[in-house]
Amino acid sequence: MAQKYTTREEDYSKWYNEVIGRADLAEHSDVKGCMVIKPYGYAIWENIKDVLDKKFKETGHSNAYFPLFIPKSYLSKEASHIEGFAKECAVVTHYRLKNAEDGSGVIVDPDAKLEEELIVRPTSETIIWNSYKNWIQSYRDLPLLINQWANVVRWEMRTRLFLRTTEFLWQEGHTAHATKQEAIEEAELMNNVYADFAEQYMAMPVIQGLKTESERFAGAEETYCIEAMMQDGKALQAGTSHFLGQNFAKAFDVKFADKDGNREYVWATSWGVSTRLMGALIMTHSDDDGLVLPPKLAPIQVVAVPIYKSLEDLETISEKFKELGAKLKAMGVSFKYDDDDNRRPGWKFAEYEAKGVPVRLAMGLRDLEAGKIEVARRDEKTKEVVDFDGVDAFIAKLLEEIQINLLNRAKNFRTENTHKVDSYDEFKKELKVKGGFFHAHWDGTAETEEKIKQETKATIRCIPLERDAEVGKCMVTGKPSAGRVIFAKAY
Amino acid sequence: MAQKYTTREEDYSKWYNEVIGRADLAEHSDVKGCMVIKPYGYAIWENIKDVLDKKFKETGHSNAYFPLFIPKSYLSKEASHIEGFAKECAVVTHYRLKNAEDGSGVIVDPDAKLEEELIVRPTSETIIWNSYKNWIQSYRDLPLLINQWANVVRWEMRTRLFLRTTEFLWQEGHTAHATKQEAIEEAELMNNVYADFAEQYMAMPVIQGLKTESERFAGAEETYCIEAMMQDGKALQAGTSHFLGQNFAKAFDVKFADKDGNREYVWATSWGVSTRLMGALIMTHSDDDGLVLPPKLAPIQVVAVPIYKSLEDLETISEKFKELGAKLKAMGVSFKYDDDDNRRPGWKFAEYEAKGVPVRLAMGLRDLEAGKIEVARRDEKTKEVVDFDGVDAFIAKLLEEIQINLLNRAKNFRTENTHKVDSYDEFKKELKVKGGFFHAHWDGTAETEEKIKQETKATIRCIPLERDAEVGKCMVTGKPSAGRVIFAKAY
Repeated sequence: MAQKYTTREEDYSKWYNEVIGRADLAEHSDVKGCMVIKPYGYAIWENIKDVLDKKFKETGHSNAYFPLFIPKSYLSKEASHIEGFAKECAVVTHYRLKNAEDGSGVIVDPDAKLEEELIVRPTSETIIWNSYKNWIQSYRDLPLLINQWANVVRWEMRTRLFLRTTEFLWQEGHTAHATKQEAIEEAELMNNVYADFAEQYMAMPVIQGLKTESERFAGAEETYCIEAMMQDGKALQAGTSHFLGQNFAKAFDVKFADKDGNREYVWATSWGVSTRLMGALIMTHSDDDGLVLPPKLAPIQVVAVPIYKSLEDLETISEKFKELGAKLKAMGVSFKYDDDDNRRPGWKFAEYEAKGVPVRLAMGLRDLEAGKIEVARRDEKTKEVVDFDGVDAFIAKLLEEIQINLLNRAKNFRTENTHKVDSYDEFKKELKVKGGFFHAHWDGTAETEEKIKQETKATIRCIPLERDAEVGKCMVTGKPSAGRVIFAKAY
Repeated sequence: MAQKYTTREEDYSKWYNEVIGRADLAEHSDVKGCMVIKPYGYAIWENIKDVLDKKFKETGHSNAYFPLFIPKSYLSKEASHIEGFAKECAVVTHYRLKNAEDGSGVIVDPDAKLEEELIVRPTSETIIWNSYKNWIQSYRDLPLLINQWANVVRWEMRTRLFLRTTEFLWQEGHTAHATKQEAIEEAELMNNVYADFAEQYMAMPVIQGLKTESERFAGAEETYCIEAMMQDGKALQAGTSHFLGQNFAKAFDVKFADKDGNREYVWATSWGVSTRLMGALIMTHSDDDGLVLPPKLAPIQVVAVPIYKSLEDLETISEKFKELGAKLKAMGVSFKYDDDDNRRPGWKFAEYEAKGVPVRLAMGLRDLEAGKIEVARRDEKTKEVVDFDGVDAFIAKLLEEIQINLLNRAKNFRTENTHKVDSYDEFKKELKVKGGFFHAHWDGTAETEEKIKQETKATIRCIPLERDAEVGKCMVTGKPSAGRVIFAKAY
């Protein structure tokens, strides 16, 4: 009898953890708040990285690497930055251990105290702009378009695998420009890159928008974001791109000489996505049977399981599968043939279902003799028996279809769970009952935003870049509103 | 007048730093001991990573990610491991900052002291084996073949870019096996992978060998290594692969049930290479004009510089170069066309020479009209004028030739600087005059090894895996020796 797993309906949060466990993606480590990303989970992250890295390079960026440690004083240089970041972080105070005199193990050597404490980077604006100071002299050095793939640490008390962990992996782009306009265009471009990646690869529709002042990145003048809807109706901020104005240039005194020799402060952006995308991916598509992956990011796109009684049968079936596997690989399809004799087909079916492998093939001797093969798709959990001849092309087409189907499914879900509301009472009631995204009018003040947050736990996810030109009245205060913004409870 | 740079002859160490600066590979950061790897340096590291990662996957390994932090008590679990590692490391003692009451900035919050200090990983055996304890139950879970790409920290007082830095980037493989034999074979396999990579990609010949007991990794039963010779005759340990026996399995109580249900301790290996390889690459091939890169790892393999007087000429030349560039790119050759109008050809020639670009093309209008193009190779600093027709194939062949030439050149250099010595006096004298590798007999004791190290600063680099079956007498004590070992001063 198979183990009974939690459904989304029963307990969404528990379901999420079980999906991760069943697919063997990650686990909590013994180090508080830090996770171990297991091989299958890391393989998905590698696919995400590879696609994004290529897109960054195509848009003119280069990778580099900056120190893990940031001197404490650097964090104070940009006033609002320290307020937002430096508080919950890992602080290195000593650089040596020594043997305890009582032989009980090792202790921190009190003689090896650092003069200035080092902070494990929560984000790298300060250490990077401290370097840019020396790299940028003239307009010829601009634009400077750099990205870093790195680990960062933000001390978290309540952690959830992928969604919120003390240490996480991410990329952080940091660019410098001669003009304000160019920096804004860069921030918009990278937000577009994120949105395009989310939709085309993750099959996850997102809304592009601007954060309100209170939700902005600490140190930014404008924060662009992509917001996605999870299957419990909550919003997840999947990526952000910041126009930083001249804030960091001023904090680190980074000026450039323009063509006329005038020295001006440099304009900046930063933008990032993290292993949080893994959480978004899991929660967008998976079902009660486990993980569902879009083919473009699946480490294994097609798995084949032989159905056999004798080892002689197995050999005959294996030959056909290996031939098919070679064809698929030549087409760029990642293929796994699982002929492990220690496991039964039923066990394997459940295993690859839990792991979200988009297409599963099965073939027994009778199928083979009839020139047939069974093809099952993970997204819709349907299967059909098709001709073995030409099944390679059939599979390639099916993978494309699954990719599109997942995006459409997620789009439909979002449409069904997006509501226009005009009264605060209606908003509060519907938020409780339905969840989802609420398009509502807001007066533009931080006070009203805070009041709504306190009373309902919903926040303004973004001011959408594309919205109807519709003036109205704030649902709370009745004051004028320039257009609807999106409210939701969020991860 | 061009700036005068230091030659290898004048000051090898200064020359090394200047090569890095001129090629814009890396720089010291303001954080003591930590470096910034700049875009061009990082692009070389990315090429190194990509090739190695592919080789690891081809040999059955998967990537994963483990926490940056290690609880202090874990380091004490394997007795010899703590002796070798835990002493000089970054210790996290607090997890929060707060505003100073006097408004002077931020201070460490004394209330946010960790119960147990966390060590920034100097290597990950302990945290990984603490996870493996839960992952390994039965022989079916073995072998477990995992690799991690990560940053690590070992507190260093004297640092040198790439060669010795407090933080560095590396990969660390950690595998678990059912039998001793299989673990030894894995350690040997990965040392072979490193040796093959060094020779075939870095064009750097290496000697494979075993470390003596005193030079072994802390916690290993056997350390395999690859040793390369730099142009100053010093040795550089470029990679190590450790057979760890059951030491970590015992320290973390990792047992597996074999087919008969007996529970046995697991056998382990670990292996790693780091950004130190960048230092090895630079010191193996570069000359007094700057960096020299083997084509297989060069971010730019071919650079093209137009020679023109009018913008109209430039347009004509650009058309030809772009056509050639497209052909080269289709052949998998990385090509850069530098038509920057702000820089003169002479400046560009020096720039790409300093950056070690293997092949440089130049073409003026007169060349173009005669159907000719100038091709210069960085390794030998020669150039020739060839027919434009068919130059793509000519370049592809030249790149192969340069790759082979660099390896041969380094091999010849090593041969010339390798000496057989039989008396300690001769050894001491020659070590002073010539440097290089010395094949000498040694009695196998740590005492003699230490005496030689104290008196000459030379260490036993390795006991070569391939050596003549030649018994002899220790050059110091006259006691019997089973074969010659390699002595050298080392980085």
